[in-house]
Amino acid sequence: MNIYADNAATTRMSDVAVQAMMPYLQGIYGNPSSLHTAGQEAAEALAAARQTVADCLGCIPKEIIFTSGGSEADNQAIVSAAVMGARRNKKHIISTAFEHHAVLHTLKKLEKEGYEVELLPVGSKGNITAQQVADAIRPDTCLVTVMYANNEIGSVLPIAEIGAVCKEKGVIFHTDAVQAAGHLHINVKEQNIDMLSLSAHKFHGPKGVGALYVRSGIALTNIIEGGAQERGKRAGTENIPGIVSMAAALKDACEHIDENAVKVSALRDRLIEGLSKVSHSALNGDPDSRLPGNVSFCFEGIEGESLLLLLDMKGICASSGSACTSGSLDPSHVLLAIGRPHEVAHGSLRLSLCESNTMEEMDYIVEEVPKVVDYLRNMSPMWKDLVNGRKPFIL
Amino acid sequence: MNIYADNAATTRMSDVAVQAMMPYLQGIYGNPSSLHTAGQEAAEALAAARQTVADCLGCIPKEIIFTSGGSEADNQAIVSAAVMGARRNKKHIISTAFEHHAVLHTLKKLEKEGYEVELLPVGSKGNITAQQVADAIRPDTCLVTVMYANNEIGSVLPIAEIGAVCKEKGVIFHTDAVQAAGHLHINVKEQNIDMLSLSAHKFHGPKGVGALYVRSGIALTNIIEGGAQERGKRAGTENIPGIVSMAAALKDACEHIDENAVKVSALRDRLIEGLSKVSHSALNGDPDSRLPGNVSFCFEGIEGESLLLLLDMKGICASSGSACTSGSLDPSHVLLAIGRPHEVAHGSLRLSLCESNTMEEMDYIVEEVPKVVDYLRNMSPMWKDLVNGRKPFIL
Repeated sequence: MNIYADNAATTRMSDVAVQAMMPYLQGIYGNPSSLHTAGQEAAEALAAARQTVADCLGCIPKEIIFTSGGSEADNQAIVSAAVMGARRNKKHIISTAFEHHAVLHTLKKLEKEGYEVELLPVGSKGNITAQQVADAIRPDTCLVTVMYANNEIGSVLPIAEIGAVCKEKGVIFHTDAVQAAGHLHINVKEQNIDMLSLSAHKFHGPKGVGALYVRSGIALTNIIEGGAQERGKRAGTENIPGIVSMAAALKDACEHIDENAVKVSALRDRLIEGLSKVSHSALNGDPDSRLPGNVSFCFEGIEGESLLLLLDMKGICASSGSACTSGSLDPSHVLLAIGRPHEVAHGSLRLSLCESNTMEEMDYIVEEVPKVVDYLRNMSPMWKDLVNGRKPFIL
Repeated sequence: MNIYADNAATTRMSDVAVQAMMPYLQGIYGNPSSLHTAGQEAAEALAAARQTVADCLGCIPKEIIFTSGGSEADNQAIVSAAVMGARRNKKHIISTAFEHHAVLHTLKKLEKEGYEVELLPVGSKGNITAQQVADAIRPDTCLVTVMYANNEIGSVLPIAEIGAVCKEKGVIFHTDAVQAAGHLHINVKEQNIDMLSLSAHKFHGPKGVGALYVRSGIALTNIIEGGAQERGKRAGTENIPGIVSMAAALKDACEHIDENAVKVSALRDRLIEGLSKVSHSALNGDPDSRLPGNVSFCFEGIEGESLLLLLDMKGICASSGSACTSGSLDPSHVLLAIGRPHEVAHGSLRLSLCESNTMEEMDYIVEEVPKVVDYLRNMSPMWKDLVNGRKPFIL
């Protein structure tokens, strides 16, 4: 059996997304900045895609900027708010300890430039409350950036409540919705979101394209300087095939959002139920406020990378945490943020599902994971300690 | 007849490029940062593409960074050299007055940050000499950035000579080769190029992907912060379909570079010969050191935008200059840089060809352009002045 259970890392493009892209590779291939028919056809496709994305998010087309992906969108949102803040001597930024590195590393850069970054501590279930945000906001706060849902442990944050707090206090609110877009209902106006980042390849769209929603009135700072594309705020010939395909994928995802959520969360719950039976295991993240497709566990006494490699040999593609930080020997900053000890954080497994996964696949995973965990524990010194009487980290 | 003669703005994807992309949309769709088989297959494709691009440029794979396009590559190259320079108190940058806006606007940003930018004046044929560069280099020069070939007027600059000068003086040399890659022979080592930017969609590859060659030893500064992709120098899940397709397109272009140049320059020369017969017209750029596919003219007494729209009605897709600045009412900074008066710079026409254009198409263009020029001149007050005795700008 070959099971792809790493949809939080990237997804397979849907037929809808591929079909939307095809006419723009060799048919309508003009540069949308060109005045001639070939260019104007491309410009029309660009405008239609912008309308579609805006409709999916509940905003107007001119509030959408197309980028090369979620990371670029996060970078541009945060830098823009920081630049706006600096103009009014507001250089305090609030975020959380378990954001994606596209956010955290951008904040680190700003810290070096004199900004004060305050990372809110994360609860043991991977939650942040709107009250925490309210308490942290100061007169010199220029930005609150809190992710919509965590990429590793799947907890979904109270975005509308945080949005309401930020609106009341007059602070710009950005959310990295890379894991949420296409999977959870989003309405930026109702939720009082000022800026939102998304990435096409997380909802069966193409890689290399994303979008940034920016509420009218917020001045963007360019990350990429050059031509006057995207109202002068993002230079570079527009990736029309990618943008059109992203719009189609997002529309498709949003149209099926409820049925997909029902289906995918049933698969998720089967895994959670099955894997919870492994001794000395713990579900990471919030059991209730959780992405439909996210399953994240820590297993005491094992090393996540070995687990992944053995599961791969059994045809199961999974992850230990974020694909973006693989290759690093450090334990996940997300798992540390929710209070997992180093020893336990190393033994993590993330299974992220989509609507094309099946219950049969879940049964297979539930059967195979405990075997591999047992196998690894039998050769683990840490596990032997526990068997010999050490107090377990996970009860 | 439908003629696409705007290949400097963007190109139609080749069959080779499309075929290379297809397996990576729904087949091998993993995230190359993932440890499992699906991820590692993608990682292998990424490595192979990097090797291909390196081979085409004459460097080693780890000197290639993939970006979202030429603009991003230009931005990153220039900012990186500036940051390196600042560390040694070198904040003087040499460039030219007719670079692409991705270069000029990045330099403008650096100027605001305290760098001194010196734009070399451009000769009337659109040339810069290596001697000009040598004379401008100072002990505090940290970067020379000179384009390989101009996007509007097609002049090809003496890159190897400039590279030799920069090497001798120990100054980093970047070239924006967006118009040259795949069209002219490039060997970054032989030409002593330290950094080079290219864009896939200018050589029949996909939009939304480019590359930056960076000589080993040059420290890159991130434009996009986040995950550890591209050796930590460019965050964001790699656009595998785009990157693989770009590599295939570049390889294909380089393998056919000589035959394409012979074919395309014959088409070009037919246009130049035919359009030179229009009275009060002038070829822009160097007649000899010129991109194979570039034809650029100024016609006195007309307005370029009207010319384009009428040509479009006759099925000819052309440009007045750069697609990236269309919509602007200012005359091209390139044409001003080579000394065209404002009045003449407004009456520009760029026809940019590729190997799928035909001699029949050229004959049609040579027949139709003069008619449209005449038609526009007949209603032009500026032309009436000339007929009534004003001294012409173009003899």
